Amino acid sequence: MSYRVREIVLSRPVPDGACISDFEIVERVLPARPPAGMVHVRPLWLALDPYIPQALRGRHMGAPAPAPGESLPGDSVAIILSSGAPGFEPGDHVIGHAGWAEEAIVPAAGQRHVDPEWDLVAHLGILGMPGLTAWAGITQLASVQPGDTVCVDAAAGTVGGTAGQIAKLRGAHVVGIAGGAEKARLVTERYGFDACVDYSREGWEQLLPPDIAVHFENVGQRVLDAVLPRLRLYGQVVLCGLAQHYGAGTPALLSAGMLMGRRATVRGLIVYDFLPRRNEWIDFAAPLVKKGILVEAHDIVAGLESAPAQLIRVAAGKAMGRPLVQISV
Amino acid sequence: MSYRVREIVLSRPVPDGACISDFEIVERVLPARPPAGMVHVRPLWLALDPYIPQALRGRHMGAPAPAPGESLPGDSVAIILSSGAPGFEPGDHVIGHAGWAEEAIVPAAGQRHVDPEWDLVAHLGILGMPGLTAWAGITQLASVQPGDTVCVDAAAGTVGGTAGQIAKLRGAHVVGIAGGAEKARLVTERYGFDACVDYSREGWEQLLPPDIAVHFENVGQRVLDAVLPRLRLYGQVVLCGLAQHYGAGTPALLSAGMLMGRRATVRGLIVYDFLPRRNEWIDFAAPLVKKGILVEAHDIVAGLESAPAQLIRVAAGKAMGRPLVQISV
Repeated sequence: MSYRVREIVLSRPVPDGACISDFEIVERVLPARPPAGMVHVRPLWLALDPYIPQALRGRHMGAPAPAPGESLPGDSVAIILSSGAPGFEPGDHVIGHAGWAEEAIVPAAGQRHVDPEWDLVAHLGILGMPGLTAWAGITQLASVQPGDTVCVDAAAGTVGGTAGQIAKLRGAHVVGIAGGAEKARLVTERYGFDACVDYSREGWEQLLPPDIAVHFENVGQRVLDAVLPRLRLYGQVVLCGLAQHYGAGTPALLSAGMLMGRRATVRGLIVYDFLPRRNEWIDFAAPLVKKGILVEAHDIVAGLESAPAQLIRVAAGKAMGRPLVQISV
Repeated sequence: MSYRVREIVLSRPVPDGACISDFEIVERVLPARPPAGMVHVRPLWLALDPYIPQALRGRHMGAPAPAPGESLPGDSVAIILSSGAPGFEPGDHVIGHAGWAEEAIVPAAGQRHVDPEWDLVAHLGILGMPGLTAWAGITQLASVQPGDTVCVDAAAGTVGGTAGQIAKLRGAHVVGIAGGAEKARLVTERYGFDACVDYSREGWEQLLPPDIAVHFENVGQRVLDAVLPRLRLYGQVVLCGLAQHYGAGTPALLSAGMLMGRRATVRGLIVYDFLPRRNEWIDFAAPLVKKGILVEAHDIVAGLESAPAQLIRVAAGKAMGRPLVQISV
């Protein structure tokens, strides 16, 4: 017996800088049982992380773009239907790459068990890579002291939102930067930042605090130009992302003279370096997530076929919180 | 009885970016004895630090440019001729600002005793601010491990030369960058760097090592553009000076994306922050200087009236080692 499932792939290569709109749904024929070392999974939730538009253009961490017809990047939380790998049993919940697919047969080595005691969606966000990114930046690369002013941009997303919440737990005064009144409200009302500056408004730079001790950067030149002059002496900048520049071809530039005058420290963050320490973050964060002390927001669409439209919203900065696709229930 | 001495001052304001060539010698009338709190000093050696051309243009640490006729900046080692301040006795050796003068009456509070047991000139260089700068950069802002490749530009000067020697003492492989074959020889033969790249030669960038763990920057864009692509993962950059940009009006810019990809750390160094720790450096370095393990080079001209020409050589990057004026013997 074989098995037909639907999967979304690129219909043609995504050109540099162009819209991501060329997807198609294909049918895959899966074998009745997974071969040795493989598992048959049914993704429940697919996370459309902000790196994915770049990955589709072959501009993420040196990996080539997926060819038309190949499985697309993105983590999902899935349930195992059948297994050809020891240690993976039907009914287990796992996280890993499984393509944008209703079901898939994937190497067990690329899947990791998750604890279904926690909200499954949290494994894709606040307990997953985005949360780990925020933790690494605020606690490992930066040093946040009580009373410090911490600034976080792209604050409405899970990375920025969690970074600000961790800084708050350390006693900082936290100011977010986000685009639009709705996102700014999310940042203060749901994430509990002390303030959020809406950078879509004229003169937003003037609303930034003048004594930024730590800045967590996810956007690029536009924010850096506003924040660096407001960095206090010995201020710290964590470079986590440069979303404004993805696909834009122009680099984000920092003034060496300004950094020198400020005695600033700038550090580049790549979350993959911190994967071996993931459990430190989960052990800290999971109880706080359960108690509602650390929170995230979700931007959910339902159905596999909604994934391309959701990705286009992500690329346009329109997602209100963590962008997810509910593939199955 | 009063007292006439010669002093060099500006004859007119130094215009932005122009040559520094408008000096004149004036006569000062000094009182026979210094007032209370003041000391009468005779400078022996005047150091023409690389910051002075900038200071004459009002572009150093926010201080205004000296007006025509005012005393000029620069540290000197002097001998006290007479004193109106407790703790300062005739015959004491002090370091501090005394203008570009044969003799001067200056506030005792601006003078600091130096140990005449050490070479007096060392107090102005390797045991003074330039050495402290190198120490702060290599040991306090950066972390140099045995076997690391360390790159230092402006390597022929006392700051760069001492930075490289400290890195050598920590077991690093040290590559200098300097302009011209003569400076490059000074760097390897006198300072003992493992190699020195002459950036006046075509294709010099290709001679830089590909795995720079720590880079100590004194020049600016031209060097940064060559070094940053050769920074290894988790590489460190200490921004100590940007000589190429002084008076040029163009900023030195760092690519945030490159720093992020390299997981680099960039830190700005201002030596004044480390003045309270000066004795740590002196205690470490003075015995090594005496034994000839830490060395510096001197570029000496004799006579107060030689100071302007020496400063113009400094501004043009022509000094071979520490630029000094021997005012008196």
